[in-house]
Amino acid sequence: MKEKDLRVQDIGEFALIERLVEVLGPASRGAGQGVIRGIGDDAAVLQNNPGTRLLASCDMLVEGMHFDLSYFSPRQLGWKALAVNLSDIAAMGGRPRWALVSLGLKPELKVSFVEEIYAGIAELAGDFGVIIVGGDTCSSPERLVIDICILGEAYRSEVAYRSGAREGDLILVTGKLGAAAAGLAYLREGGKAEIDGSEELRQAHLKPVPRVKEAAILIHSGMVGAMNDISDGLASELHEIVQASGCSARIWAERLPISQATALMARHMGADPRDWALYGGEDYELLLTIPGEKGSPLKARKLGRSLMKITGTPLNFIGKILPVSGAVEIVQSDGEIEPLLPGGYNHFKK
Amino acid sequence: MKEKDLRVQDIGEFALIERLVEVLGPASRGAGQGVIRGIGDDAAVLQNNPGTRLLASCDMLVEGMHFDLSYFSPRQLGWKALAVNLSDIAAMGGRPRWALVSLGLKPELKVSFVEEIYAGIAELAGDFGVIIVGGDTCSSPERLVIDICILGEAYRSEVAYRSGAREGDLILVTGKLGAAAAGLAYLREGGKAEIDGSEELRQAHLKPVPRVKEAAILIHSGMVGAMNDISDGLASELHEIVQASGCSARIWAERLPISQATALMARHMGADPRDWALYGGEDYELLLTIPGEKGSPLKARKLGRSLMKITGTPLNFIGKILPVSGAVEIVQSDGEIEPLLPGGYNHFKK
Repeated sequence: MKEKDLRVQDIGEFALIERLVEVLGPASRGAGQGVIRGIGDDAAVLQNNPGTRLLASCDMLVEGMHFDLSYFSPRQLGWKALAVNLSDIAAMGGRPRWALVSLGLKPELKVSFVEEIYAGIAELAGDFGVIIVGGDTCSSPERLVIDICILGEAYRSEVAYRSGAREGDLILVTGKLGAAAAGLAYLREGGKAEIDGSEELRQAHLKPVPRVKEAAILIHSGMVGAMNDISDGLASELHEIVQASGCSARIWAERLPISQATALMARHMGADPRDWALYGGEDYELLLTIPGEKGSPLKARKLGRSLMKITGTPLNFIGKILPVSGAVEIVQSDGEIEPLLPGGYNHFKK
Repeated sequence: MKEKDLRVQDIGEFALIERLVEVLGPASRGAGQGVIRGIGDDAAVLQNNPGTRLLASCDMLVEGMHFDLSYFSPRQLGWKALAVNLSDIAAMGGRPRWALVSLGLKPELKVSFVEEIYAGIAELAGDFGVIIVGGDTCSSPERLVIDICILGEAYRSEVAYRSGAREGDLILVTGKLGAAAAGLAYLREGGKAEIDGSEELRQAHLKPVPRVKEAAILIHSGMVGAMNDISDGLASELHEIVQASGCSARIWAERLPISQATALMARHMGADPRDWALYGGEDYELLLTIPGEKGSPLKARKLGRSLMKITGTPLNFIGKILPVSGAVEIVQSDGEIEPLLPGGYNHFKK
């Protein structure tokens, strides 16, 4: 049998794991990365830095529900599965360190396909110094399933909770919003729309870059109150912060950072780019608050400039935290104030 | 709609998570258990004990591949999904502390069914002081998928690796072997065989008790060289120890600890109980080595007596570690020495 025709069922679990470790290369070893024992025993043995707290999160992606293999290459899928997890650690203000990868695979999948998933994981892991220390592979006859558990660390003073927003805080967001939803709409339409910046939108959906470096700079400023990553849409994430913090929020529609490509794609699709920004989700930008006392707009601009200079990522002021509990409002372009409902992505709901 | 008819798709992800946290009760809180923030933020924030190393492992179970809902109750499934993970931490000599639970659910599943899975998780977590600190729920239209990531800790001197076996070591095993395979055969046949001890076999497959307490006592003796839990069958696990340690092993067929119920079931099914013990897997007993110098058989007996006294679990001497690399032999009842091939469970293989 030719190497390129080899399927998972031809080589079995143990040989597959050996090949995947090979693909990971340095991303499976981690000398000096706190890895005392990685893949190859009943559990990984790890050493976090003294005095740090441990951060742990997991995200499961299911074929046809979270991703479509008609436009996702296996390498992009591996990248994205890890990226959404790194984003969770960034949102806590931490450094991602180790990951465990569980894969449910169709037995007839090509070995080279699974290796490509791992190549995507290894690529992103390499960019952020993350080591793959364990996982599981098993048979899933109908759909590819990939579940990654990420472990990170942060010193106590670095951890940013959802509950850290206070009355008067400014609400900021990194990057641009709605690009991932615009990219998804473009891909679902077959990638045929000829629009300036369509490649940027495609990448926003297929290969989001987690804001790990941005989070570190923001946390280092000492100004961050609450922080969330935008996985389910800005509206939904802002509601989470407001609920956890016992306050309310008001944002301005005109201040939503929307790229030109997103606006063009929305016009082409007959969609509202603000809907994508508010409800689209999967942007994996950071939504955060900083104190709103006198002089803070100036400080926010300074922070934004230094973030842009170091990472190339913009930081935009979009709203304010208000007293009273629970509500989120949006000020429309005409000055009308409307309630902003959560309405982000909700699994299972019909 | 009546409460008992409620389906996952009727209430959606967020309401489902709220209910599951309710079911977990104390198993989701963990005051004084190193949980600074559990379920409800982008990641859990945890504090391991100073000086400990972190242990991390995950196991994914897929409906129809690892479990069959025709004989697994959802509560048993939740229990077992966590049990196989606790077993991995035990095999490293550690204390399980926190778990993250990813669930892929059919949207039409009853909410009460999912709550029962969590009740099983909560029951076992409570027994071992494990706190559920996070997870993910998403849609998986054809099959229920459950992937648990377990985090534990151990001081450096406590960690037991596969690679710790040395020439002359004695090979020991906790409990009885083949019971889980006997239970599976019984369940697959519809649970109709009228055999003394069939309930014990059923439980061995459906509700294995991870050997966490036993591992702690064994490690505390300071005698453990290598240790593995028996998930894929004794033969396969022994090969893993032998390969990792660069040695070989010989076991005696007559010394394999097989319960009377397992022997009776094998006779009823026309199966060889030793095959179940060697290749059946899922017994989740501990396979370990201790030094074999003068006086150690006596020490092993003493260790076995104290293990039995405290936990009720027997400890049996089944073989010896030999020099030379790679081979595992079995001495049959007639004195014939044969190679023992790995042959444990291997996913994907046709």
